[in-house]
Amino acid sequence: MRVRRKPWADEELLTNEQVVQEPTLLKGKWHELFNNDNPIYIEIGSGKGRFITETAKVNPNINYVAIELQISVVAVATKKLRTDPVQNVRFICGDVKYLEDYFNNDEIKRIYINFCDPWPKKRWEKRRLTARNFLGIYKGLLGEVGEIHFKTDNHDLFEFSLNEFADSDWKLGNISLDLHNSAFEGNIMTEYEEKFSSKGMPIYRCEGIVRK
Amino acid sequence: MRVRRKPWADEELLTNEQVVQEPTLLKGKWHELFNNDNPIYIEIGSGKGRFITETAKVNPNINYVAIELQISVVAVATKKLRTDPVQNVRFICGDVKYLEDYFNNDEIKRIYINFCDPWPKKRWEKRRLTARNFLGIYKGLLGEVGEIHFKTDNHDLFEFSLNEFADSDWKLGNISLDLHNSAFEGNIMTEYEEKFSSKGMPIYRCEGIVRK
Repeated sequence: MRVRRKPWADEELLTNEQVVQEPTLLKGKWHELFNNDNPIYIEIGSGKGRFITETAKVNPNINYVAIELQISVVAVATKKLRTDPVQNVRFICGDVKYLEDYFNNDEIKRIYINFCDPWPKKRWEKRRLTARNFLGIYKGLLGEVGEIHFKTDNHDLFEFSLNEFADSDWKLGNISLDLHNSAFEGNIMTEYEEKFSSKGMPIYRCEGIVRK
Repeated sequence: MRVRRKPWADEELLTNEQVVQEPTLLKGKWHELFNNDNPIYIEIGSGKGRFITETAKVNPNINYVAIELQISVVAVATKKLRTDPVQNVRFICGDVKYLEDYFNNDEIKRIYINFCDPWPKKRWEKRRLTARNFLGIYKGLLGEVGEIHFKTDNHDLFEFSLNEFADSDWKLGNISLDLHNSAFEGNIMTEYEEKFSSKGMPIYRCEGIVRK
């Protein structure tokens, strides 16, 4: 997602208490931040934050951490929280490559990956967030019963992802080749998903379950 | 597939040596019939036999058994073998419901299911050849490293099948959401597949691998 640089974004990130300034210092201590023992679910690439914020609202007994690379996008997400506060969600402006610096092994229970960059060229395969190199990292971070919930509109990325899960010995579940015309209940749409599916294009979804 | 009753079909089935007359008598003894110890692969619903015959030709060290319910369809398949003999293939005119009467546990190594009836209504779910009740039967018949290779043009059946495999704890592999535009090599088309894919519609394919 390309966004214009927003001059107020730096200020927003520095002053909003729901933004985590130094996430590496919280590694192994996220429960202290949330001040409870509820499970921690994260979203990698949370964009403007609609999915994680809405999900957090309907699940007050889960703690959510959103990770998004672009300052301006995080700022849009967190600014909304000033007028519509949600206590059980925090934002990291950071990169997936530091995921193991943000969280301890077994510290999180679920990872959401929604409409990530498909990196379509073969030589970019390892950059896809569902590539086996990432799945290996996620497996460490997830607990004994951890899960990934994955959505995409990209046919080739979905096919690739199913195979990466299967080849990496994850158990697959709730596979949907057309989410919005399926029996799946409780779907919360991302901004991108709403825009895309309104054109009648299918949304693909699956879950990968850790097998340890 | 609906076919006209062919008057010569009964005669064809009774006189063609590549048709197995009493398959239940071969249970546990298929290797004696083929007179070797090569692995046995079967196809359930082999139609006019193009897939299994072509597959048998390029794999002379595998034994193939084709199962097809309709007499007239089996007859079309076996009649071709009179002028173009393939030694490592046999046909059963029979029903999948007798599969465990035809084969011993661990007697077969691979099952092909190609373009089976999608039985689209929810109440027909158990009749689909990839439903979990069938997968349980197949698991018994397959050896320690057994596989199912499945193709369909039916989107909903494919989605259903992926979930049945995953929920039944089969390992998935080589998942393709558009076989004819994929990197998959060595695909042998069925009669139906050629007709259907020539219209530009996608063919779905996956493998289910026994996990014992």
